[in-house]
Amino acid sequence: MTTPSSSPWRLARRAERMNPSVIREILKVTERPGIISLAGGLPSPDSFPIDAMREASARVLRDSPREALQYAASEGYGPLREWVATQMAAQGLRVDASQVLITTGSQQGLDLVGKVLIDAGSTVAVESPTYLGALQAFAPYEPEVVTVPCDDDGPLPAGLAVAQGARFLYMLPNFQNPSGRCMGEARRAALVDAARAIGLPIVEDNPYGDLWFDAEPPPSLASRWPEGTVYLGSFSKVLAPGLRLGYVIAPPAMMPKLLQAKQAADLHTPGFNQRVVHEVIRDGFLRDHVPTIRARYKQQRDAMRAALEAHLPPGCRWNVPSGGMFFWVELPAGVDATALLPKAVDLGMAYVPGAAFFAADPKPNTLRLSFVTVSPAEIERGVALLAQALKGD
Amino acid sequence: MTTPSSSPWRLARRAERMNPSVIREILKVTERPGIISLAGGLPSPDSFPIDAMREASARVLRDSPREALQYAASEGYGPLREWVATQMAAQGLRVDASQVLITTGSQQGLDLVGKVLIDAGSTVAVESPTYLGALQAFAPYEPEVVTVPCDDDGPLPAGLAVAQGARFLYMLPNFQNPSGRCMGEARRAALVDAARAIGLPIVEDNPYGDLWFDAEPPPSLASRWPEGTVYLGSFSKVLAPGLRLGYVIAPPAMMPKLLQAKQAADLHTPGFNQRVVHEVIRDGFLRDHVPTIRARYKQQRDAMRAALEAHLPPGCRWNVPSGGMFFWVELPAGVDATALLPKAVDLGMAYVPGAAFFAADPKPNTLRLSFVTVSPAEIERGVALLAQALKGD
Repeated sequence: MTTPSSSPWRLARRAERMNPSVIREILKVTERPGIISLAGGLPSPDSFPIDAMREASARVLRDSPREALQYAASEGYGPLREWVATQMAAQGLRVDASQVLITTGSQQGLDLVGKVLIDAGSTVAVESPTYLGALQAFAPYEPEVVTVPCDDDGPLPAGLAVAQGARFLYMLPNFQNPSGRCMGEARRAALVDAARAIGLPIVEDNPYGDLWFDAEPPPSLASRWPEGTVYLGSFSKVLAPGLRLGYVIAPPAMMPKLLQAKQAADLHTPGFNQRVVHEVIRDGFLRDHVPTIRARYKQQRDAMRAALEAHLPPGCRWNVPSGGMFFWVELPAGVDATALLPKAVDLGMAYVPGAAFFAADPKPNTLRLSFVTVSPAEIERGVALLAQALKGD
Repeated sequence: MTTPSSSPWRLARRAERMNPSVIREILKVTERPGIISLAGGLPSPDSFPIDAMREASARVLRDSPREALQYAASEGYGPLREWVATQMAAQGLRVDASQVLITTGSQQGLDLVGKVLIDAGSTVAVESPTYLGALQAFAPYEPEVVTVPCDDDGPLPAGLAVAQGARFLYMLPNFQNPSGRCMGEARRAALVDAARAIGLPIVEDNPYGDLWFDAEPPPSLASRWPEGTVYLGSFSKVLAPGLRLGYVIAPPAMMPKLLQAKQAADLHTPGFNQRVVHEVIRDGFLRDHVPTIRARYKQQRDAMRAALEAHLPPGCRWNVPSGGMFFWVELPAGVDATALLPKAVDLGMAYVPGAAFFAADPKPNTLRLSFVTVSPAEIERGVALLAQALKGD
């Protein structure tokens, strides 16, 4: 018997780039009873179609249990891919079902895109601020991340100069997480033209596009430049996130490698879940269901707007999102939202400090508030507590 | 409007390492009606516990629908992690539930291990032959793969010299895919001692361990060297693969990075699936269910053994597996199993040529036969057709 060495494991260099999610760490702290959490981006469970899920699960396990429980195609369940392609066509993006890859949540879409497109040291361009989960998905592939200058309408076309030569520009045009902003039609046109001019492909992430309150957002970036855009969609916000179902729509030339990456990652997305969701949505269920989510979230958005206007002190600034799940608040210059958080939690509310959403040059005086998880009454009370924390600061 | 460049996409270098699964490509060809496929490693759907699944799904959607359909912890569902830890303890591996990470199938476990441990150009050691899916999971991280010399009992301890300095040795000690071999107790002891002596960590993959026919396999490698082994398990073979549920058991020092990689890959494994499986197994269901699978597969193994003895010409050699799903056949020297396949398919049967299972120096005269998917009568007929193809060769 030889003496064991203390630790035989040697980590890959990329492991240094991996970090625990700031949001998930905050969520742990704030899950204690009594805290009003405006931190998480959790859809309201009141919006989950539980009866429809129950009936669909029973039908799948009655009509095709052997198929639903067996290994399945890496591409995804055929009828679900067809459904997605048809749905996209209705939104102005003509795609064939063969361009649809079903993923284990749209987070997996981000991982596969990173795996196929990012070399260590290659450049990836993002918005300012941007979705934290995307930064985490890309990080293990060791990109240099550059930030495109943005205004309230999204990335500035002239700002794409910094992204010249990047592997792709990652964007969330509809009700962005975390800023809540929705890119207007003119900006979309100008931005896609500018990207195409410098040969900069786009990764368009659209988990929130269906959650509009007043008017549908403009057509996707992908519909303006199909061969230059990979589009990511999700069932998490219109049905339920616990099923982990998303999809990637890719130009035909990109599909083989994305599919091989998918195969290597988890063979396929659970067939049971794919069939249950298809069973729920096949006959137009979402046509009636999604408007109920919109109405619910709009009411909660209004409650948060009213609360912010009533309670926040002068010097605070916020957008009013026309869809999605988030307000983005700028506190007076000099206030550090990260430092303020423990005080807010002591008072009984939580939010996510904005700094984590910047790939570079974080704005310490920003924070993200979600209005979808808790009731209007709790939103009012939570924002009042935030104001109290600010006053005591 | 500027002229669009033909393709703006530039693939990562690692994409060159990705290839379509040979097996999945073969399965596509052989899915046409009338073909007796001994190719796929698909568990028999007759073994799926459909009634139990139906009841468990209904219970989960009745008792905890909001939790089952909401975002959940990246680590996995607490009670399922506890179940796995308890189960492992019964097999001689003392682990805490905090060392259990639930994955989207054990294929995802392989991907996460690769992501956390492999640098481009670093060395990974495998058996000869080895599981193709593992080679595919590791390939995107660009390792140099070295093959440890093996005999019918698995890797030779003296052979580990070639693995000196490798990030890990990947092994499937129980009823290996594709060879069917099961490593004996003495070899396990000698191999772990040799690995420990050179500080070579082990990744132990155990999807088939419960499928023994006569006697339980010896204790896991992990139980001999817990701090030097990452262990992968799966519910695919004892319940159903379409749920995509597996788990990683790791030394405490490894968990944080594996968890961060998991978060980045798909946030978490579907909570619905985790709760349904826990509901099925919590009260000892597998104690009665797994023996029915063993009995079924043993009968099919016996049918294949008899068919091979009856039909294969002299000069063919095969193991008789004492568990699992596969026979590994060596054809007479000079016969190329890849070249023979189209002829076999024309006659009405399919298998997987063995060459794909070698990281280096493939043996062209080998092939893998699965005995679990089709009935004893079809096994008999399929093997007879294989013999016919060989005679005509």
